[in-house]
Amino acid sequence: MIKGNQSFIFESKPVIISSATIAGPFEGEGPLAKDIDVIHEDVYLGQDSFEKAERMMLEQAAMKALEKAGVSKYDVGMLICGDLINQIISSSFAARTMGIPYLGIYGACSSSMEGLTIAASFIDGQKVKYVLTGASSHNCCAEKQYRYPTEYGSQKPPTSQWTVTGAGACLLASQGVGPKVTSATIGRIVDLGITDPFNMGAAMAPAAVDTIEAHFRDMNIEPDYYDIIVTGDLGSIGHKIALDKLLENGIRIPVKIFGDCGMMIYDSKKQPEVLSGGSGCASSAVTVYGHLLNRMRSGEIKKMLAVATGALHSPLTYQQKETIPCIAHAVAIEM
Amino acid sequence: MIKGNQSFIFESKPVIISSATIAGPFEGEGPLAKDIDVIHEDVYLGQDSFEKAERMMLEQAAMKALEKAGVSKYDVGMLICGDLINQIISSSFAARTMGIPYLGIYGACSSSMEGLTIAASFIDGQKVKYVLTGASSHNCCAEKQYRYPTEYGSQKPPTSQWTVTGAGACLLASQGVGPKVTSATIGRIVDLGITDPFNMGAAMAPAAVDTIEAHFRDMNIEPDYYDIIVTGDLGSIGHKIALDKLLENGIRIPVKIFGDCGMMIYDSKKQPEVLSGGSGCASSAVTVYGHLLNRMRSGEIKKMLAVATGALHSPLTYQQKETIPCIAHAVAIEM
Repeated sequence: MIKGNQSFIFESKPVIISSATIAGPFEGEGPLAKDIDVIHEDVYLGQDSFEKAERMMLEQAAMKALEKAGVSKYDVGMLICGDLINQIISSSFAARTMGIPYLGIYGACSSSMEGLTIAASFIDGQKVKYVLTGASSHNCCAEKQYRYPTEYGSQKPPTSQWTVTGAGACLLASQGVGPKVTSATIGRIVDLGITDPFNMGAAMAPAAVDTIEAHFRDMNIEPDYYDIIVTGDLGSIGHKIALDKLLENGIRIPVKIFGDCGMMIYDSKKQPEVLSGGSGCASSAVTVYGHLLNRMRSGEIKKMLAVATGALHSPLTYQQKETIPCIAHAVAIEM
Repeated sequence: MIKGNQSFIFESKPVIISSATIAGPFEGEGPLAKDIDVIHEDVYLGQDSFEKAERMMLEQAAMKALEKAGVSKYDVGMLICGDLINQIISSSFAARTMGIPYLGIYGACSSSMEGLTIAASFIDGQKVKYVLTGASSHNCCAEKQYRYPTEYGSQKPPTSQWTVTGAGACLLASQGVGPKVTSATIGRIVDLGITDPFNMGAAMAPAAVDTIEAHFRDMNIEPDYYDIIVTGDLGSIGHKIALDKLLENGIRIPVKIFGDCGMMIYDSKKQPEVLSGGSGCASSAVTVYGHLLNRMRSGEIKKMLAVATGALHSPLTYQQKETIPCIAHAVAIEM
């Protein structure tokens, strides 16, 4: 059902019957390690390229989610995935391995919640019985593609972020036990003219603000409706900007319920190299589909709004001196 | 409603209330010129890069579709677009211009029908009132990214195809006059081990066959249910392979109703440089959203199955010696 201008309610309340997360060694040293199903010791995962390693993480997350739910891949009607690599090869090649009817999406780091929204929509419309959705990123793939290969050891300014090496997936069904997807707000592009790819948090913060505001306006609820509101990967700088801007616009989100996956997934004191925090599709995919859904399952969180943010530029648009168009999609998940 | 393993019916029959197509000068010399709304004389469209020209074509197709329907962009709940350029920048930057809540997709040349399927699903589920969906490609962008810049003038084998310079968009609504989207079949990845990026038709043909077979099996209908069945961009070589393979599998599609957008959009005699035929997201987007929907509106065609095919490799996967994973999505459109 339509709510306002850019939101809608999933009346049948699609259920996340299982979810799984996979990550690299550095994420395994972070505070969310106990919620990650498989922590790899080798960033190559024994593969001969970082790209193949990323694909393998996505496949493992998808397979693990199926295993937890005891659902065969042959019963899954649709796989919806996205990632950051050119032509989303992690997703498409994982889809080849899985053999499930597949829709590829691209929303940069907002892909996790874009996928969850489309997945919930297909379940809600009774188009499929089970939908698997996931997203992945790999630090070495993203650095190589967007900035410099990690082997160069180039220095980065304190505003920059650390792409999470990991993958997360969840399995949705029309019935079952688990957190339910209740509504979603699709974001518009917001571009305030930032051109610096080392300051993505600042670029993406206005998009997060725009979508969060739209969500509360469309749904006609107040921020305290939720036990937790998390952005995907704004990092400490972008998150502060978003909080200030929301306050300025009269949206008072209590600081203690307003988090950011990119700040939660690493320990900024013990892992100072992450600088402003984590980023990448896996930032929200690993944190939401692992840690946060686990806290929902344990009863600690009843209502969550997950707002994944994405920077939709490319190295080519940067070279062509374009600014960075950003987007955010918000999904409400309730027990 | 679910039908079989990978198909579903749109019970509310979302209506394509308008559609529009834009193309370059070379496409304007082809047999479908009269169905193209705007034919540009300059492949740059007055922009300073081919990428900006592609984006502009997509924006123009979207705006033209709105104009034809007399719908304001502020009333459109969602824009769903895809293209071939890394990080689908044509789509995302066009979404910035449009200011409509946006979902980016990537299905390579299958993006047109992937977008139409997701759009119809959101309309069918009463999530939005109007959805705009489109896809674009530009010969010079695609050649530069996937093979060689066109300025090199490199020769290509006769199996290769010509990326269509153009864009197509259509506007869906829950009510109105026009062709209706009645069902869809989502494809699985099919990869028969082809590694040659100059023979995409052969690589994609098995995916088209897999989806067409699934459609008839799931829907429990025969090929003669449709007045026309078109593939997206198999070209003459891929289309012949698909026809043979379908016959081998016992699916008898009469030759006179089985077409290919990539073969229809150019005149192979007058435009021999297209070699095996047209390709790219715009091959199916321009042909289906222009020429074929016009034939439906005139009453000449009552039932159409559009099967857009996509090759989901990347220059990087080619360099890493991977084979080409392919996919096809089929959408049934009926008057």
